[in-house]
Amino acid sequence: MSTKSKIFLVLLVFCPLSFAAHWLGWGETTVFILAGLAIVPLAAFMGTATEEIAVVIGPNAGGLLNATFGNATELILAYIALKEGLIDVVKATLTGSIIGNLLLVMGFAVFLGGLRYKEQNFQPIAARLNASTMNLGVVAILLPTALQYTSTGVTETVLQNLSVAVAVVLIGVYLLSLVFSMGTHAYLYDVGLAENMEMPELGETMAEPSPPTEEEKPNLWLWTGVLLAVTLGVAVESELLVGSLEVATESLGLTALFTGVILLPIIGNAAEHATAVTVAMKDKMDLSMSVVMGSSLQIAFFVAPVLVIVGWAIGQPMDLNFNPFELVAVLVAVLIVNSISGDGSSNWLEGVLLLATYAIVALAFYFHPTLI
Amino acid sequence: MSTKSKIFLVLLVFCPLSFAAHWLGWGETTVFILAGLAIVPLAAFMGTATEEIAVVIGPNAGGLLNATFGNATELILAYIALKEGLIDVVKATLTGSIIGNLLLVMGFAVFLGGLRYKEQNFQPIAARLNASTMNLGVVAILLPTALQYTSTGVTETVLQNLSVAVAVVLIGVYLLSLVFSMGTHAYLYDVGLAENMEMPELGETMAEPSPPTEEEKPNLWLWTGVLLAVTLGVAVESELLVGSLEVATESLGLTALFTGVILLPIIGNAAEHATAVTVAMKDKMDLSMSVVMGSSLQIAFFVAPVLVIVGWAIGQPMDLNFNPFELVAVLVAVLIVNSISGDGSSNWLEGVLLLATYAIVALAFYFHPTLI
Amino acid sequence: MSTKSKIFLVLLVFCPLSFAAHWLGWGETTVFILAGLAIVPLAAFMGTATEEIAVVIGPNAGGLLNATFGNATELILAYIALKEGLIDVVKATLTGSIIGNLLLVMGFAVFLGGLRYKEQNFQPIAARLNASTMNLGVVAILLPTALQYTSTGVTETVLQNLSVAVAVVLIGVYLLSLVFSMGTHAYLYDVGLAENMEMPELGETMAEPSPPTEEEKPNLWLWTGVLLAVTLGVAVESELLVGSLEVATESLGLTALFTGVILLPIIGNAAEHATAVTVAMKDKMDLSMSVVMGSSLQIAFFVAPVLVIVGWAIGQPMDLNFNPFELVAVLVAVLIVNSISGDGSSNWLEGVLLLATYAIVALAFYFHPTLI
Repeated sequence: MSTKSKIFLVLLVFCPLSFAAHWLGWGETTVFILAGLAIVPLAAFMGTATEEIAVVIGPNAGGLLNATFGNATELILAYIALKEGLIDVVKATLTGSIIGNLLLVMGFAVFLGGLRYKEQNFQPIAARLNASTMNLGVVAILLPTALQYTSTGVTETVLQNLSVAVAVVLIGVYLLSLVFSMGTHAYLYDVGLAENMEMPELGETMAEPSPPTEEEKPNLWLWTGVLLAVTLGVAVESELLVGSLEVATESLGLTALFTGVILLPIIGNAAEHATAVTVAMKDKMDLSMSVVMGSSLQIAFFVAPVLVIVGWAIGQPMDLNFNPFELVAVLVAVLIVNSISGDGSSNWLEGVLLLATYAIVALAFYFHPTLI
Repeated sequence: MSTKSKIFLVLLVFCPLSFAAHWLGWGETTVFILAGLAIVPLAAFMGTATEEIAVVIGPNAGGLLNATFGNATELILAYIALKEGLIDVVKATLTGSIIGNLLLVMGFAVFLGGLRYKEQNFQPIAARLNASTMNLGVVAILLPTALQYTSTGVTETVLQNLSVAVAVVLIGVYLLSLVFSMGTHAYLYDVGLAENMEMPELGETMAEPSPPTEEEKPNLWLWTGVLLAVTLGVAVESELLVGSLEVATESLGLTALFTGVILLPIIGNAAEHATAVTVAMKDKMDLSMSVVMGSSLQIAFFVAPVLVIVGWAIGQPMDLNFNPFELVAVLVAVLIVNSISGDGSSNWLEGVLLLATYAIVALAFYFHPTLI
Repeated sequence: MSTKSKIFLVLLVFCPLSFAAHWLGWGETTVFILAGLAIVPLAAFMGTATEEIAVVIGPNAGGLLNATFGNATELILAYIALKEGLIDVVKATLTGSIIGNLLLVMGFAVFLGGLRYKEQNFQPIAARLNASTMNLGVVAILLPTALQYTSTGVTETVLQNLSVAVAVVLIGVYLLSLVFSMGTHAYLYDVGLAENMEMPELGETMAEPSPPTEEEKPNLWLWTGVLLAVTLGVAVESELLVGSLEVATESLGLTALFTGVILLPIIGNAAEHATAVTVAMKDKMDLSMSVVMGSSLQIAFFVAPVLVIVGWAIGQPMDLNFNPFELVAVLVAVLIVNSISGDGSSNWLEGVLLLATYAIVALAFYFHPTLI
């Protein structure tokens, strides 16, 4: 078992602790912090379970599973918050997840990887296609904001209708991009997967790669059980987190905007964070980039549109009209990532640039006067 | 004769029909639709005539003719609308032509070409230079809008003076870019032309390429006559179209903005559309890209500045102060095209991305509340 | 001695002339023009002295000296203006220096170089890294503006605190980028330096390159004296320039904004201008690009943050809240430069594009109604 897995196992202790805090009335702020910490290992095990099941059920069904469950934590957390009517927090979490993935996670991966290797290379074709797709996603979810901000007389109904229409287009593009990456152009991505197979940990013997035999295959039922259990855990802990959010953030002196854009995405993306950084430090930049970009793409093309449609269905209409400064922040993140990932190589200074951009954006949100 | 030419010949029937509709009083909406359909084949034959004459009079004079008449339909249509005082419709048509060329036409070309060929390549040097020039053009025609939008106290006179000054700079750059592409750096584009010569249609014999003899040369007088006739036809049909525009769009439930940005450019660019898609499906992506980019560049560097100066001369002052959302839409189009065309290769998913961006932009304009 | 040096020596005559104008009361406009002309040669000799000292004290200390004194003229000029409370002029000079370097200086270098050589190449890795860093710098110094512009209720205190925090981040990145370029990844830049060593002027003998002997080394004390003298000269002339600025620009019919964005940066960057163009005409595009980008980077990562912190210390609080149109202009400049410098080659048309963008931006500032 890797060190990372051990850390996550230990972190599971926050699950019972958060329950205790809730039932014994230790205060909303304590519940908020403990529930936040409890979600981190649950999200990690959800990721592991998804990947293990994907290995067994084969690349196509597995890819679909990954594409659906990859950001399940964000989806569940956002759904609970949406149900409670915290629509602006949900929207802030979406932009925050994109910003956090592109700047904070990619920044740490490129920086720490770059400290160990002078120059790290990755497939520029897939990277550029991902960046182009990301550009569309960002444009799409932010266009309603631009419409509202540049025009007068845009009614809430218009924004809601436009948002649902945009959501349908985005889900359509998402499905077509799965056809592309798992169907017609799978070879573009296969190279990456083959060369990025998990390397043996220190101390393990270096074995000839061979197809997994029946015994080596992980237990499908075991992992499905784990997946169901942790999915339930995330739902439950999300309830605690969302329930205590308003009181807790106020007592911590933070705005709901800052919590949504900066804090919640760090909790929800901790697992991707760990994976992307770990593999970058093993010089597997293709995998690292694909984890980061894949996660961002799922937010823009799957999580956000699903929430728009679900919100419309459950009577908590969520449009895609964001705070204009969120628009600026996401554009900034995408601009910097485009300019850094375009050439297929990275070094530690580029990591510093990404992290510094994140720091500046986070500072701006920290000083932002809007209480949402 | 190619299938495409036959279709355009048949479409000519809409010319007499639109006259009938106008004189027999079939209603403004009918006139609008029939005149719109009649312009499509006229624009196509104007393109063919221009190219045929260009072959006879040689590359330099021919290039100049192409550079001037390439977007004659848009120019005539816009001039008629400008004369009628429909200044906002004219401006909307300009941004709509750029958006439509870059997203819709290039999108269909890349998508349909990509369905037939797994990967299509094109010269990245010319593509990038075109993209850079396009960036300048977009920046230039949109800077007055940005000035007006970010500042207070910008008078109409200031905007008009700034617009005329910008128009002069743009025409200057246009002339210099002709010197570049036909003079000092013609070799960059020659490669493209040589390799993109019209391939024989199915059934024709594959002949050794040879310089056209006197007999093979098309009849200069014939094509000049055709050019004059169709130019007159476009003017006349444009009068019908513009005259019925306001009543017709209202009865169709469309805003003038939507008509200007989405409908009119589709009519005006139908010929480029057909060419760009046809050659992309023959894997001649260089030619396809150059048709699309060339048309967009002519709008920004020739049609728009000429209209500003003509409008100022005929007392219908047209500044370059656009609806701010048009600015956003054009920036979005250019961003996506830059990110897709930068690497010199394309696939069907990139076509989907372009088309999806167009769909989202069109949706936003459809829901846009402004009646101009 | 090169022709360039002779021209600068002759220009020194404007130093006594500007004093005479000031003491003999020739009018504020005369003082303004003469002081402006006097600063040009002083800035040039400051640059020469810095480089000569850098040769003696070795690459590391020399690099640091260059990084600190490279934009000393701008720093001194801005400091004097800041002390006088002309905060908006200072901010305009900062954005104007970036725009002027990226569009006007790079434009002339690429254009004039391109007239002599059909195609000029430069190292794309360093160019792209510089561009990425520039993107961060631009984003950072403009984010407070975006915050203020997109939100309501942003107080001056918030902007000031955010600006100081951003300034600290920028100086941190600047120090790390020095570690990168002079330490861990010096080899990326060494190539450039070796190949860009000053070529012998016509008439000098072509000698085998050899390490400078004690005699060949320039006199450290002499150049330190020159540096101190010209630094003092720049301070003094800056006092004259700033003192006469308000009356002079008014009598010349210019706004303070136009003076700050267009006029002052041309004065402050005349030396870089001369160097960048001269070396481009010798086909040393790497050096030309690095002069232009280096100067812009120093403005964004050193001069601007230092002024924010100094202003805060001397009780002339300068935030990073710019005129929104300055934001647009800087974004435009960076967009065009990214799109032109990304491929590692240049030609005269790209120079025309840069210059045309500068012309359009300058026109917009000329017509801008704001008196600051």
